[in-house]
Amino acid sequence: MIIVMEQGATEEQVEQVIGKLDSLGFSVHRSTGVVHTVLGAVGPAELVDPNEFNVMEGVKQCRREMSPYKLSSRGFKPEGTVVRFKRERAGYVEIGGSEVVLMAGPSSVESEHQLTRTAELAARAGARFLRAGAHPSESALNGQRGLDAEGIKMVRRVADLFGLFVVAEISDPSRIPELEEQADLLQVSSANMQNHLLLHALGKCARPVLLKRGIAATVEELLVSADHVLAGGNYNVILCERGIRTFETFSRHTMDIAAIPAVHKLSHLPILADPSRATGRRDMAIPMARAAIAAGADGLLLEVHSDPDHAASEGAQAVRPEQFSELAAQLKLIAPAVGRSM
Amino acid sequence: MIIVMEQGATEEQVEQVIGKLDSLGFSVHRSTGVVHTVLGAVGPAELVDPNEFNVMEGVKQCRREMSPYKLSSRGFKPEGTVVRFKRERAGYVEIGGSEVVLMAGPSSVESEHQLTRTAELAARAGARFLRAGAHPSESALNGQRGLDAEGIKMVRRVADLFGLFVVAEISDPSRIPELEEQADLLQVSSANMQNHLLLHALGKCARPVLLKRGIAATVEELLVSADHVLAGGNYNVILCERGIRTFETFSRHTMDIAAIPAVHKLSHLPILADPSRATGRRDMAIPMARAAIAAGADGLLLEVHSDPDHAASEGAQAVRPEQFSELAAQLKLIAPAVGRSM
Amino acid sequence: MIIVMEQGATEEQVEQVIGKLDSLGFSVHRSTGVVHTVLGAVGPAELVDPNEFNVMEGVKQCRREMSPYKLSSRGFKPEGTVVRFKRERAGYVEIGGSEVVLMAGPSSVESEHQLTRTAELAARAGARFLRAGAHPSESALNGQRGLDAEGIKMVRRVADLFGLFVVAEISDPSRIPELEEQADLLQVSSANMQNHLLLHALGKCARPVLLKRGIAATVEELLVSADHVLAGGNYNVILCERGIRTFETFSRHTMDIAAIPAVHKLSHLPILADPSRATGRRDMAIPMARAAIAAGADGLLLEVHSDPDHAASEGAQAVRPEQFSELAAQLKLIAPAVGRSM
Amino acid sequence: MIIVMEQGATEEQVEQVIGKLDSLGFSVHRSTGVVHTVLGAVGPAELVDPNEFNVMEGVKQCRREMSPYKLSSRGFKPEGTVVRFKRERAGYVEIGGSEVVLMAGPSSVESEHQLTRTAELAARAGARFLRAGAHPSESALNGQRGLDAEGIKMVRRVADLFGLFVVAEISDPSRIPELEEQADLLQVSSANMQNHLLLHALGKCARPVLLKRGIAATVEELLVSADHVLAGGNYNVILCERGIRTFETFSRHTMDIAAIPAVHKLSHLPILADPSRATGRRDMAIPMARAAIAAGADGLLLEVHSDPDHAASEGAQAVRPEQFSELAAQLKLIAPAVGRSM
Repeated sequence: MIIVMEQGATEEQVEQVIGKLDSLGFSVHRSTGVVHTVLGAVGPAELVDPNEFNVMEGVKQCRREMSPYKLSSRGFKPEGTVVRFKRERAGYVEIGGSEVVLMAGPSSVESEHQLTRTAELAARAGARFLRAGAHPSESALNGQRGLDAEGIKMVRRVADLFGLFVVAEISDPSRIPELEEQADLLQVSSANMQNHLLLHALGKCARPVLLKRGIAATVEELLVSADHVLAGGNYNVILCERGIRTFETFSRHTMDIAAIPAVHKLSHLPILADPSRATGRRDMAIPMARAAIAAGADGLLLEVHSDPDHAASEGAQAVRPEQFSELAAQLKLIAPAVGRSM
Repeated sequence: MIIVMEQGATEEQVEQVIGKLDSLGFSVHRSTGVVHTVLGAVGPAELVDPNEFNVMEGVKQCRREMSPYKLSSRGFKPEGTVVRFKRERAGYVEIGGSEVVLMAGPSSVESEHQLTRTAELAARAGARFLRAGAHPSESALNGQRGLDAEGIKMVRRVADLFGLFVVAEISDPSRIPELEEQADLLQVSSANMQNHLLLHALGKCARPVLLKRGIAATVEELLVSADHVLAGGNYNVILCERGIRTFETFSRHTMDIAAIPAVHKLSHLPILADPSRATGRRDMAIPMARAAIAAGADGLLLEVHSDPDHAASEGAQAVRPEQFSELAAQLKLIAPAVGRSM
Repeated sequence: MIIVMEQGATEEQVEQVIGKLDSLGFSVHRSTGVVHTVLGAVGPAELVDPNEFNVMEGVKQCRREMSPYKLSSRGFKPEGTVVRFKRERAGYVEIGGSEVVLMAGPSSVESEHQLTRTAELAARAGARFLRAGAHPSESALNGQRGLDAEGIKMVRRVADLFGLFVVAEISDPSRIPELEEQADLLQVSSANMQNHLLLHALGKCARPVLLKRGIAATVEELLVSADHVLAGGNYNVILCERGIRTFETFSRHTMDIAAIPAVHKLSHLPILADPSRATGRRDMAIPMARAAIAAGADGLLLEVHSDPDHAASEGAQAVRPEQFSELAAQLKLIAPAVGRSM
Repeated sequence: MIIVMEQGATEEQVEQVIGKLDSLGFSVHRSTGVVHTVLGAVGPAELVDPNEFNVMEGVKQCRREMSPYKLSSRGFKPEGTVVRFKRERAGYVEIGGSEVVLMAGPSSVESEHQLTRTAELAARAGARFLRAGAHPSESALNGQRGLDAEGIKMVRRVADLFGLFVVAEISDPSRIPELEEQADLLQVSSANMQNHLLLHALGKCARPVLLKRGIAATVEELLVSADHVLAGGNYNVILCERGIRTFETFSRHTMDIAAIPAVHKLSHLPILADPSRATGRRDMAIPMARAAIAAGADGLLLEVHSDPDHAASEGAQAVRPEQFSELAAQLKLIAPAVGRSM
C-alpha cells in the first residue's frame, strides 16, 4: 500500500500511521519529499481496507498499489488457460483455444418439442453448447434460479440428440452434484458474482465454471471473484461480459466490449460475451455479437428461439433461426481477423 | 403502453403492431398525426416487455406510460405508512411517524462484552434499534449472510438489557420463523433486493421488513421490489438508501440523498438511510447522516463501535462513541426543521 | 406528452393539468381508467419541460412520448445519408456508403517532418483522411482547441502530398471560413457537443461536420445536437462514438459500441468510432477498432504516430506504424461480414 | 508514480521501464518482492500519463500515487479559505466563514419588473447574492452563455436596490473586464469546468470565481480545475456541487452531497450547492437544499421566481416565494447543527 501524507502533516501523525502499519504486519519504507511524506508499505494489503488509513489524521490518500487478485492474473500463468470439454456424443471442444465457440438456446425451456427444434437449428448453424434456463415464474416457484431436476435432464437429452454440450445455471451449492452429472459447464449468474459461498463450493467442483460479470462490477472485481473459485482448486474458469449499468438507456445495459481485451491483458482466463442479456433486443444483440468476436472474445452465449414471437419469456432478445445462421456465417468471416476459426 | 411509429411507417407495419397488441389483450387507441402515428394501448403492460415492440419494423419507440409498481405507490395509499413496533422492554416506536429513529450497532458481533458496550452507548445516545451482523468470514462458513442462531440470540439478549429493538439480516427464507421470534425488523441486503423468492416469503412474514436499495437499482426498481413484499400481504415495509455505483470513487458508493424525497413523493412507504455502508468511511458517514435527516429520512442505520480501531471488520466506517453522541445532538437540532423530533 | 395522474387524484387536480396543457397549446385526450386517469397531449412537446407537470399536485408522471429529435431520425429519411467528399489530389470518397473509411494521424502536430512520416504510413495502409490536432499547451495559448492558421495549412500541405482528405477540429465559429478553405471535414469535440452557438454556425457551413458524442451524453442527446446542425441546412453530418464515463476505470472511458447499431436504427446519419480517445491506450484501441467495424461503424478515427514513444502528447494511445498496417489488414477481413469493403 | 510489474516480468522489461522513467526525470526506487517487482518513481508525475507505462510489456499497473492537484489541497493551506465580499450597499459577507450564504434569483431575466419582485423577496428571506442568467434563446443569439451588457447592468441596478451582491456567469474571457465591474462573483458553468483558457484568464481576474463541477467530473478533477485558477494568482475560488450523471433518472442529475464533505476533507476551498440545477424540480430542490447545508455546504445557489408558473425558462425548478421563506427558516434551524449561523 502507498500512503501519501498531507502536506504539513505532523511528525506525530506520520508516526501513528507507521505504528498502525507495523501492528498490521507491514514493513514500511518512508520517503520524505519536499512537499509530501510518502509511506510504502509491503505486507498483507489484501486483508486491509485502505479506508482504515484514509480516515486517519494527516493522511491525504491511501491506496493499494496492487490489484487484489492473484490466481487469475496474467502474470500468474502467462500462457493463457484453455478449458477442455469432452463427451461421447458431443466430441471435443476447447474454450480459450484457436476456435470461437458458440453457446445457444432459448431463454427458457417451454417444452421438449420447442427445445428440440431450437437445439437442432443451433447445432446446424455451428453452436457447440446448448443453453436453456427456467421460466422466470418457475424459478420463483422452485425456490431458486435455474432449471429443476426434470428440466436439466430434458436439456441433457435434447443436447445429446444433436451432439451438443450443456451449460446450466447454478445458484444453490447443494445442487452441484446433480448439475455436475447433467451439465458440462456450470454458469454463475451476474447477480451471484459475489456470492462467496457459491464460488467456494464451485472451487471444489469437477466441472468448469462460467462466471458472469455483475452489472455494477468492475473487471478487477470480476477477477477477484474468479480468484475465489481458483483458490479452491478448480482452474477451469471462463468469464463472461454481459453489460454494465450506465446512464445510457437505449438498450438494457451498456455492453462493455473493452472488458474483453482488458481481461486478456490482465488475466489468463478465457472470456465469452452474452449480447442477448446485455442488450435485451435481438436487433442490437446481433451487431454486438460480431463486435465481441472482433474484440477477441473466446465465444458467445446467445439466446436463439425457433419462434421468438411466441416465446414464453424474453422473446425480444432471442435471435430468429435465419438470423442465427446468417450471424454464424458473419462470425466465420470475422474469426480469421483475430487469428481464430469457427 | 405508448408506441410511436417511425415517420413513414407503412400501414401494414402499423397493423402488425395493432395485431400484436390485440393478441396480448390490449385495447388500442390510434392517433394519426401529421408526422407520427401513435398507438395508446391499455392492458396488461406490466406483463409485457416494451422491447417486444421496439424490435418490430416501423416502431420508433415503445414505452410503458405507467411505472410498474402499484401497491407501494403514493396514490394507492396517500396518507403514508407508519410501521409500529412494540415490545415489553423496548416500549413503543413508530417509523414513518413524527419521530426520527436511529438504529445503531457494530458491523459484526465480536463478543458479548463488546456488543454490550456498544449497545449501551447506542441506547444512551438515543438509538431505538440495535443492529449487528455476522463477521464476513463467519457468514461464508454458515453458508449465508447474517447471524447464526446463537448470534441472533445474543443480540436479542443484549438489546433487551438496554431496551432496544433488534434489526437483523435475512437471506434464507427457511430462517424466517427463527428470526421472527428473535428480531423485530428483518433486513434484506442490497445484494438481495431482487431475490424474488425471499421477497415473496417475507410477504407472508409477521414482522416488518427493511428493504435496502441495490447499488445498481433505480428508485423505481426499489419500489417494484417492495411491491413483491406488499403483494403477499405484509404492508410493513421500510425502504433504505445506501448508495449507488457511479464514476465517483472518493467514497465507496455515491449516496443518492435525492432518493429520500423521491420515495416520499412516489410512495407511501417510510425510508431510512445507511450512511456507513454508502460511504465506507466514518468521516463521510457523519455529514451524510445529517444530510439524510435534513432531506426527510425517517431514520438512520448507522455503524457504531465502542473501539473501531480494533473492530473485527469495517472499522473505518464505524463511528466512535463520542462522535455518535455528538451526531445525535446535531440530529436533534435538525429534526425540527423537517417537522420532526428525535 | 403522456401524463399519468396519481391514483386518487381529484377532479380538480386533473382539471388544472388539462388547463395548463390547454394554455400551452396542446390538444388533450383524456382516458379515465379504473385506477389512473391518463392524459394524452398532442402539441409543442419539444418546447415544454415535462417537469412543469411532474411538480403539479396529483401528477404521478409526465413523459414526452416522442424523442425530441426529428431531422436526424431514421423516419425522416429512411434511406440513410451518404456524405460525399471530392478533391483533386484525394479523389472521391463516401462516408455512409459501402466502404469503411479510415481517418488517421498524430494526436498533435509536432513538426512537418514528423507529420509527413506519419501521413505517409497512414496513406499507405489505406487511410483516406489525415487527422491532426494542436498540442494541448498550444491550444491553451492560441485561446482555443484545434490548430492555428499555420498548423492547419501545414496539415493541408502534407495531406495533399499523399492524396489524403483533412479533418480538423473547430471550436470557434469565427474560424469557420478559414477551416472551410483548408479542411474537408470539420470536427466538433465531445466537450462542445452541446455548444449550440457552434452547432448553429456549422448549420450554415459549406463543409460536412463530424459531431462527437459527449462523455455524459445519451445517444438521443447526440441526435438532438445533430438536429441543431441539420436545422441550419447542412445535411452532411457524421456522428462519432468516443466513450462515455462509467464506474469502470481500466480504460479511460467506456466505449459504447452499442451506440453504433443504435444510431443506425434511430437515425439516417453515418457514425464513426474513435477508439484512441475512448480507451487512451493503444493496446485497447486496436481491438476496439475491430469491434466498431464489426458492429457496423462507417469508419474510424484513429491516432497513429510514426514514433509514439517520443510523441509530444498522448503517445500511449497512438498506434505504431506496423500495428496500423496489421489492423488495416484485419479490418479488410471484417468489412465483408457487414457487407462492406475497405 | 508506482509501477507494479507483472509476476514473471523479465529483467529486460524492468530495465526498459526504469530507463523510460529515468529519461523522463524520475528517480526510481526498486523493490523486488517475492511475486512482484514494484518501482516507486519520484518526479514530474503530473506531466506524465500513467498509460505511457501501462502499455509497456511486463507492466501490470501504473498509477500516480498522488492526486494531481496541489494548490487547492487542504495540506497546502490547512486553515481553510474564506472569500470576502464588500460593497457599499450590500455590506460585507464571507463565504467559507461561520455564516451560511444564500444566492437566489430567477433562471433568466425576463423584465426589470419581474427581477425586482424576485430580488425583493430573495433579500427579505435572507439571500445575500442575486443570481440571474440570460434566457437560453438569448444566450444563443448573443453568441455565448450569460447575460449581455444591458442585462448585467440591470441585475446590478436591481441588486443595489435591495443591498444584494451579484453573481454572474462568465464564458468568454474577453468579457472579464466588463463583468469585473458589474458583478461581485464570476461563475464558471459546469460545461466550462475544463475550459482551460477561461480558467487561466480568471486566474488573473480581480473578482472571486465560482467554479461549478461538471456532470461527468470527479471531485478530484474539480480540484485540478481549481488549481488552474489558483495558479494564476487568484486565490478566491469557491466550488459548487450541482449533480452528476448516473443511471438514476427520477431527477435530472444525481446530486452528490458527499462531494461537500469530500471537498472539505481534501481542500481548503469553500463549496456551495446548486440544488435547482441538480434536480430540475422544485419539489426535490427544497429537501436537497436542506441536505446540502446539513452536510456542511458553505452556502446555496437557488432558483427562485416570484411567479414560477409563468417563468420564461426552467419554471419547474424555481422555488415559489413562500417556499423560499419557509426554506430559509428551516436552514436557520439546521445551520447551528454544523456550527454555523444564517
